[in-house]
Amino acid sequence: MRDVHAQLTEWMHRVGMDVRIDAAGNLRGVYSASPSSSDAPARRFFIGSHLDTVPHAGAFDGVLGVVLAVALVDLLGGRRLGLTIEVIGFSDEEGTRFGVPFIGSRALVGAVDHELLERRDAGNRRVSDVIRDYGLDPTRIADAAAGDDAMGYLEFHIEQGPVLDDLGLSLGIVDVIAGQSRCDVVFVGAAGHAGTTPMAARRDALAGAAEWIGVVEREARTTPGLVATVGRIEAQPGAANVIAGHCRATLDIRHAADDVRVGATSRLLGCARDIASRRGLQIISEAQHDQAAVAMDSGMVARLADAMSRTDHPVHRMPCGAGHDAMIVARRMPAAMLLLRSPGGISHRPDESVVEEDVAAALGVGLECLEEFARG
Amino acid sequence: MRDVHAQLTEWMHRVGMDVRIDAAGNLRGVYSASPSSSDAPARRFFIGSHLDTVPHAGAFDGVLGVVLAVALVDLLGGRRLGLTIEVIGFSDEEGTRFGVPFIGSRALVGAVDHELLERRDAGNRRVSDVIRDYGLDPTRIADAAAGDDAMGYLEFHIEQGPVLDDLGLSLGIVDVIAGQSRCDVVFVGAAGHAGTTPMAARRDALAGAAEWIGVVEREARTTPGLVATVGRIEAQPGAANVIAGHCRATLDIRHAADDVRVGATSRLLGCARDIASRRGLQIISEAQHDQAAVAMDSGMVARLADAMSRTDHPVHRMPCGAGHDAMIVARRMPAAMLLLRSPGGISHRPDESVVEEDVAAALGVGLECLEEFARG
Repeated sequence: MRDVHAQLTEWMHRVGMDVRIDAAGNLRGVYSASPSSSDAPARRFFIGSHLDTVPHAGAFDGVLGVVLAVALVDLLGGRRLGLTIEVIGFSDEEGTRFGVPFIGSRALVGAVDHELLERRDAGNRRVSDVIRDYGLDPTRIADAAAGDDAMGYLEFHIEQGPVLDDLGLSLGIVDVIAGQSRCDVVFVGAAGHAGTTPMAARRDALAGAAEWIGVVEREARTTPGLVATVGRIEAQPGAANVIAGHCRATLDIRHAADDVRVGATSRLLGCARDIASRRGLQIISEAQHDQAAVAMDSGMVARLADAMSRTDHPVHRMPCGAGHDAMIVARRMPAAMLLLRSPGGISHRPDESVVEEDVAAALGVGLECLEEFARG
Repeated sequence: MRDVHAQLTEWMHRVGMDVRIDAAGNLRGVYSASPSSSDAPARRFFIGSHLDTVPHAGAFDGVLGVVLAVALVDLLGGRRLGLTIEVIGFSDEEGTRFGVPFIGSRALVGAVDHELLERRDAGNRRVSDVIRDYGLDPTRIADAAAGDDAMGYLEFHIEQGPVLDDLGLSLGIVDVIAGQSRCDVVFVGAAGHAGTTPMAARRDALAGAAEWIGVVEREARTTPGLVATVGRIEAQPGAANVIAGHCRATLDIRHAADDVRVGATSRLLGCARDIASRRGLQIISEAQHDQAAVAMDSGMVARLADAMSRTDHPVHRMPCGAGHDAMIVARRMPAAMLLLRSPGGISHRPDESVVEEDVAAALGVGLECLEEFARG
């Protein structure tokens, strides 16, 4: 993180920005507005994304959005606009270390509380400890919050999915970040000897879970826009010659419309109960997480669409299935996202990539947009 | 093991047996035949089972069969028969320590080879090392083999399944020990983001495996006598918000008729390939183990049936889905098994049990049988 801060700071200085690192470890480069004739302070437009990614990831998740923001300022060639541009590189979006995502963007919206600062990593170090280790002061975290001059936030990010690539498009405008429910579903049956227990006498927890995984997949396939995933499964005792008496499966389910997601989740848990009851199993379902969909600002979305039209790019609006800092920042100011095509839909892997012409397209749209925002 | 050897040795001595421990750690109590008028040595009839069980098991798996054998001799009240009775408590049937079962009974049939003696446990001790640690001489393992006087082997064992309990029967005669195939089936797809990958673009290895588990269950439910189990499953990377790119499942499949088992296994592997091909997945199947069914000796089965009729027990013949020492001993001499009801089908658990009247019934049938064998 020190290396990426140093590199970006150098680039930010080169294009005329003032740089600081806030108490949450966000890198913040300020490109001030043109001197104003009025006494009113210039409004401030944020452009950014996150600087961290997951282990064993690629080179573009997150940081591309920050580099694009610096490049946008560079494209101004020293020209000042009627607004302050603040480029922000968020410190911890993934949540890899503390199990809680969006620490950087939470700080920008004033949502880092004592509980979050006390959270500990695998080495038993608190968030506040590692902030201090980095040379920052966690008691000043409130100073990281955006002020009243905040007028909006734009985030460039790779799509991390195959939709734009499949459509042959460079860019997509996010209209909504999908809501997400996550729960664990535990099927409890009876372990038994794989050789001596006739099929009719079994209460096989894994067979019940497998039937339910099929239902989850069918529900999502037949509901437009719904994605539902069982990504983790644990069967106990987990021996080849023992019928599973216990099976825990995760459900991750997302949709742009909260009512569709909540309805599907409830139907799927009902199906799990039906399957269990038919098979003589018991069901325990444990909700882990429930997050409503976050709409992007309609005015900003419209301006992005206009900018795409003017720069001769087909306008494609899409929901975004992944969580992003924009979802957090939207609590505090109008927010929008522009997604860049991910070839093969690949992300969080070393072979994650972007297409050069897509990056150029994003810069063109970004510049149009920025000038438009500056005009008011 | 030293404690159980000491206890059983005391009981064996009390009923007039000579006791030794062979080089494979089998406890062997010999109750000699009545003096013969001819020069021909008496034939030898083996009765036994194993003294070990699995960790966290109950009190009856295996050892009940050895205690019943001693009790049978006790019932003779010192009377000698026209055959030598050898009660054998096998040393390692489960294979818990070395991953290879039936070490004791293999020694009785002369099938312990150098490779088996060199096999190592989790602490890197060889089979031959632990034999020496116990005070025995592994170079003398050949002396553990049965001689030419061996005329047959009878094993009493708890059923470890629910069939007799469901039928309300005390005892069952095994006519065949089911053959068994075991393999791993690996589904390979593509890991992906659970939020950004539309359903139609997924190659979900766990969803493929789940569909196949349903097919396995249906095949077994619709094929009389077939049992098929997926007891272990591992989905990778195994995160709730990542589509599984890799999923390994085990298949354990058993039937009394080898052609039925082999046919079903081949059909199920074909189904796995079909599912994979439809879903854009790849399949790797790895055979782990293939064991043919072992028929019990028809003459001994008939005598057991006669003995049950004479002692007023309904005659129930059944295949046995679990492997037992009798399966190994059958390579060398006529072998048969009498199963005792397992209440609730429970075994390999602390609440494993037997019913006192079933034990009495087994002793009655055993005594009838023994006298019958002695008559020739």
